[in-house]
Amino acid sequence: MVVIGGGFGGLAVTQALKRADVHVTLVDRSNHFLFTPLLYQVAMAGLAPAEIASPTRSLLRHQANARVLLAEVTEVDLVAREVHTRETRPLAYDYLVLAPGSTNAYFGHDEWVNVAPGLKDLDDAVEIRRRVLLAFEAAERETDEAARRRHLTFVVIGGGPTGVELAGAIAELATFVLARDFRSIRPDSTRVILVEGSESVLTSFGPELSARALESLRAMGVEVRPKTRVTNIDARGVECGGERIDASTVLWAAGVRAAPLGASLGVPVDKQGRIVVEQDCSIPGHPEVFCIGDAALFVPAGEEQPLPGVSPVAMQQGRFVAKKIARQVDRQPSAQTFKYLDKGIMATIGRSRAVARIGRIRLSGFIAWIAWLLLHIVYLIDFRNRVLVLIDWAWSYFTYQRGSRLITGHRLHAGTPGDQLDRQGEPVPDKPLNGLPRVGHDTA
Amino acid sequence: MVVIGGGFGGLAVTQALKRADVHVTLVDRSNHFLFTPLLYQVAMAGLAPAEIASPTRSLLRHQANARVLLAEVTEVDLVAREVHTRETRPLAYDYLVLAPGSTNAYFGHDEWVNVAPGLKDLDDAVEIRRRVLLAFEAAERETDEAARRRHLTFVVIGGGPTGVELAGAIAELATFVLARDFRSIRPDSTRVILVEGSESVLTSFGPELSARALESLRAMGVEVRPKTRVTNIDARGVECGGERIDASTVLWAAGVRAAPLGASLGVPVDKQGRIVVEQDCSIPGHPEVFCIGDAALFVPAGEEQPLPGVSPVAMQQGRFVAKKIARQVDRQPSAQTFKYLDKGIMATIGRSRAVARIGRIRLSGFIAWIAWLLLHIVYLIDFRNRVLVLIDWAWSYFTYQRGSRLITGHRLHAGTPGDQLDRQGEPVPDKPLNGLPRVGHDTA
Repeated sequence: MVVIGGGFGGLAVTQALKRADVHVTLVDRSNHFLFTPLLYQVAMAGLAPAEIASPTRSLLRHQANARVLLAEVTEVDLVAREVHTRETRPLAYDYLVLAPGSTNAYFGHDEWVNVAPGLKDLDDAVEIRRRVLLAFEAAERETDEAARRRHLTFVVIGGGPTGVELAGAIAELATFVLARDFRSIRPDSTRVILVEGSESVLTSFGPELSARALESLRAMGVEVRPKTRVTNIDARGVECGGERIDASTVLWAAGVRAAPLGASLGVPVDKQGRIVVEQDCSIPGHPEVFCIGDAALFVPAGEEQPLPGVSPVAMQQGRFVAKKIARQVDRQPSAQTFKYLDKGIMATIGRSRAVARIGRIRLSGFIAWIAWLLLHIVYLIDFRNRVLVLIDWAWSYFTYQRGSRLITGHRLHAGTPGDQLDRQGEPVPDKPLNGLPRVGHDTA
Repeated sequence: MVVIGGGFGGLAVTQALKRADVHVTLVDRSNHFLFTPLLYQVAMAGLAPAEIASPTRSLLRHQANARVLLAEVTEVDLVAREVHTRETRPLAYDYLVLAPGSTNAYFGHDEWVNVAPGLKDLDDAVEIRRRVLLAFEAAERETDEAARRRHLTFVVIGGGPTGVELAGAIAELATFVLARDFRSIRPDSTRVILVEGSESVLTSFGPELSARALESLRAMGVEVRPKTRVTNIDARGVECGGERIDASTVLWAAGVRAAPLGASLGVPVDKQGRIVVEQDCSIPGHPEVFCIGDAALFVPAGEEQPLPGVSPVAMQQGRFVAKKIARQVDRQPSAQTFKYLDKGIMATIGRSRAVARIGRIRLSGFIAWIAWLLLHIVYLIDFRNRVLVLIDWAWSYFTYQRGSRLITGHRLHAGTPGDQLDRQGEPVPDKPLNGLPRVGHDTA
């Protein structure tokens, strides 16, 4: 069988099949599992990329029935039961699990991709870190007051957990971390503006925690603008709510959509590109194909709201599907209905501030932050990373310093934000490969 | 005064002027100090970039008479006493210290830059890491035996410390770290070939240690080819000594030359572009301008050999020049002759193997490796990095795992080495800046 995607869902399926009588081929275009809940920390120079990522191969080293292929899936042939990739011969499957995840959605404004990067993978995080740090450097060099203000203005679009985390972290970076390092500017004169289309931030946390989050953000100096729609973004700023905001750095956290793979299958998808799946996570008419995680639209029977695009859903679906496949292979009856056990949600807002809903308990402030910290360290996937992240956090907490403040990824390190914004994405080679290796059948 | 370059030399000058009656502007195009002796560890996934780099601004945070500018120097006007940069207005100086360092030299074969990357900065290291890891991934997917062998063949050109460290580290990575992670290939069937034009490797360490290093490399399975000249390199291999070696990954460690800034000044330079400096490190005819480190050709009076391009020379020259300037500013007599105190040299060859010359003592094997380890941890520039590096080394040593095995930096993570080699360097925007800020006078 084949699993597409090595995120929370795909890894959970694969690992849960450890003792099953199957051979799993996990296909991913990235060589590492990424602990996405801490990705914003990499973007804000708090953690190094290697601290929140682990090579998929290492994670599956001891699982003899699993193999990992670094390859990009181009097409799934549901009739021939084959997965096509750019790098290998077609992979035949008897069972297939689709867990390709999600990507940033710009709602028809793809021209905003380069001027307002989103945060989905390590490359995004390093690029955002580069832009944020370069903006402070450009402000330090600048003498024109308007230009300097523009460099020190950061706009975050979208008031969900990612947007709130980014906005809080920029304010914190400027106030605590960078404040003493510059000579010509006061980084704590930084403006951080969080633009959100709906009533408030973190609306999925309910009105009480949403209000607390808003309060915390404002206490940290973040200007929150609810009920505001963005009408344009360019290299020098944002237009929203009829106003023009000059800003060198604009970050996008306003929406995601399913990875494009789902929409290419010819099965029903919603407007965000998610595959509408059955109650057992299978695809309509294809009991041998499952879709889980952010790329699936799962509406529990009798309910109206689909499950949210969060990692616990993907992991629980992964384990459910793995168990179902294992039992089918053993010719045992298998469960027909996936039930999501909602253990709660949390979001951090800055140093010592967070909001959390755990079952019926609602927490905010320092205690929520401690809960958030412990949970994220416990869930980090390997021991070494837990130790390193703990040291880095303790270090940052007590010294107000950050170890990962590196500007990398460009030969010319000293471009102005204007230059950066002209930068195009990396060229993606789109050509056939030299040798097309044959990959095993992977029958269960 | 102005210091150009924030490496070992430039940082030493600046820090040694802490109590002097001067204002120092340190100009660098990178925002971090890089501990280059451990750069090969980043290239070989042993350490993360943030573990060997520290933001220059943080290092100089408490030095009130120093400021840091992230900018690329385009020209030095020795007559007008001004430094021109791409990003700022001209910087006037009374004293100037040039410490721009060195870059890879391809001896007229600039077409080899992309097929055989060198190792000079963090971007290089991450690119080499990407290529090496992708070669193993490509071998895992490959079914054609010749192509697979090509992916598992690594050629390192140059048998100096960097070449020896890289070759040893690749052999080690394949044998110890990756061996258990792959299913279709045996990474320990990897071939590592070290090509060197002269008699042997590490010739600067003297015949005895050179022979020991050769022995160690061969014991680790590295094929060393001394007295062999490279005649061609392309995307699929190397021609050397009349033979063709098919290899997906070729690394360049065969030579460096001074950064181009020196050659642009109109003062005498040697064929490696180094400025021929006086006994006090000043430039002929310009007692107010000094050049130190890799960009300087310093021949001690009465000797024939110039000082080698190693970090202790740069640091000692930096402190000498700082003291000289401080005394001149105080109208005190200053020393006329820089004397280099050679404390020794060391190079590591792999896990538990190194060679070292400390004064007249020659060490090799495990004891040299322990000395190397301790020294490098002690010299790491900040405490946090020392702790992190120590943990990472202990972790790698006892578990045979590496934490930094991430393939990043490309949207398409799964290209074959063939694709990588087509990749061009990042585009360098070459246009005037919007606002040219005025930067302070920096008079002493």
